[in-house]
Amino acid sequence: MSEDTETKGSLLLAWQVKDKHCLVIGSGNVALSRIVHLVRANAKITVITGEGNIDPEILQLNKQGKIFKLISRNYQPSDLTMYEDSNLNLKNLDLDNLSPEVYEKIDNYVYNQRFETVCCCIDDYDTSLKVYYQCKLLKLNVNIADKPKYCDFYFGSMYNQKNLQIMVSTNGKSPRLSKIVKDRIAKEFDDIDLNKAVENLGFVRSRLKIHVPINENDVESIEDRMNWVKTLTDFFSLRQWSELDLISSHEDNKYIYVDNIVKYFPGFPPNDFEEFKKILPIIDPDFQIGKLSIKD
Amino acid sequence: MSEDTETKGSLLLAWQVKDKHCLVIGSGNVALSRIVHLVRANAKITVITGEGNIDPEILQLNKQGKIFKLISRNYQPSDLTMYEDSNLNLKNLDLDNLSPEVYEKIDNYVYNQRFETVCCCIDDYDTSLKVYYQCKLLKLNVNIADKPKYCDFYFGSMYNQKNLQIMVSTNGKSPRLSKIVKDRIAKEFDDIDLNKAVENLGFVRSRLKIHVPINENDVESIEDRMNWVKTLTDFFSLRQWSELDLISSHEDNKYIYVDNIVKYFPGFPPNDFEEFKKILPIIDPDFQIGKLSIKD
Repeated sequence: MSEDTETKGSLLLAWQVKDKHCLVIGSGNVALSRIVHLVRANAKITVITGEGNIDPEILQLNKQGKIFKLISRNYQPSDLTMYEDSNLNLKNLDLDNLSPEVYEKIDNYVYNQRFETVCCCIDDYDTSLKVYYQCKLLKLNVNIADKPKYCDFYFGSMYNQKNLQIMVSTNGKSPRLSKIVKDRIAKEFDDIDLNKAVENLGFVRSRLKIHVPINENDVESIEDRMNWVKTLTDFFSLRQWSELDLISSHEDNKYIYVDNIVKYFPGFPPNDFEEFKKILPIIDPDFQIGKLSIKD
Repeated sequence: MSEDTETKGSLLLAWQVKDKHCLVIGSGNVALSRIVHLVRANAKITVITGEGNIDPEILQLNKQGKIFKLISRNYQPSDLTMYEDSNLNLKNLDLDNLSPEVYEKIDNYVYNQRFETVCCCIDDYDTSLKVYYQCKLLKLNVNIADKPKYCDFYFGSMYNQKNLQIMVSTNGKSPRLSKIVKDRIAKEFDDIDLNKAVENLGFVRSRLKIHVPINENDVESIEDRMNWVKTLTDFFSLRQWSELDLISSHEDNKYIYVDNIVKYFPGFPPNDFEEFKKILPIIDPDFQIGKLSIKD
């Protein structure tokens, strides 16, 4: 299959590495860029730098406590399992009969022992290749820089506003073009506080879940709740959602604005933005969490 | 830690599932949406539908041959390893001394036996939870629909132009808002053939690699080549790159346009768009593949 004519879409995903171990092998500018991505995603980062020069920005991030462990020596295969406890003994368990104690052990393994991702960014082709196969043997997710064939995942160009993230990918075909597209997106959104809009709608969603508790298996009710949030979201523009500050400054009543929206459920608050803003600070002495119910 | 106040960035990645097995458990509209993502990424998709109704669009995709295997019964834990060959025997190998024969076995495991991702989209909470822990025990990447805590990865809103893909993620906080942002991006780019621009630059990159072969460990030369492509990319706008058709219709000479660009290396073709277009069809009888070299 020719590399030129083949259409090769990727599966774009938001990977959850928060509080999980991630390994970076290398100390140059590619390693730095991987580390920056991982810092942003709150990963527990271990860096094996090798014995040569280390990019000063990597040392700076280490000083700031953003790196969990920095090891200044060459990579060795046992690094891939450096946090694994050989006594954990997760082998030979019966998949059909996992107990809550086993669940706990598995959580411990996932969060404290296993590398969720391995990024290898060194110029030594033979070692890179070995790292790839060692990772796959250990069933670890791996990216070998500049070797698309030896990558479970690629990085793209990222536009970030905290909770709102946009990635542009050209499937490795033109990183520069993905950067240009990303810059154009940045220009489009840089004057809107998208993170604020996301946070505001996130508050609405999470307070609705508290006010309208639903049995986890009650699909229809879950859908009612989802559709309500959808309809409400469409009431206003991105800019309007970004201009609200839905957390009130009342220390003991900080969700009052959000609750004043949510209590309309299954009905809706005014969809005129000025009218909508007026309902936010209303204090209703009878209002209680969990009083609403989808059956009302 | 409160779900509301915590900032939780993800690691946005382009996952390579092409020709790899991926499992979807479920038969409703969420399962359908996972399947559509996977089809686009050329995965080998196995669907375990359960015994109830199957979304007609899933059946349609199956009829079109887009699904590798559709199994109409309830999930059982052994499904997670259904393609694994217990005789492959990859255990107890010495990580320090992997041979090329072992590499081949590992490739076979990665491409023909292992599920690269598992997506569980059923309404049964207890089974979902079990699927999560079974997957983690087997070190499989898993997404349990609507249970962010039990997800190695989330899906976002996607904008697709084949080789140019854009994902918007709100880290699960507001899927509706990510769709609105995605729609705005679509409006910005829908009248530009971004895929064409990516393809054109992809041809330039791959022909340059052929014309200017470099030792895999020669970092400086790799960087020279990368910087050349970067500079060239910036010569023209997205729209200009999208308006070119760099594959010529000459059957036996289809890369002549691309080669006429690449042969300027390490110098550059004209950066005036009209002048640039004029050099594309020039036929140079002395020009040969691999004649250029970075040392020239």
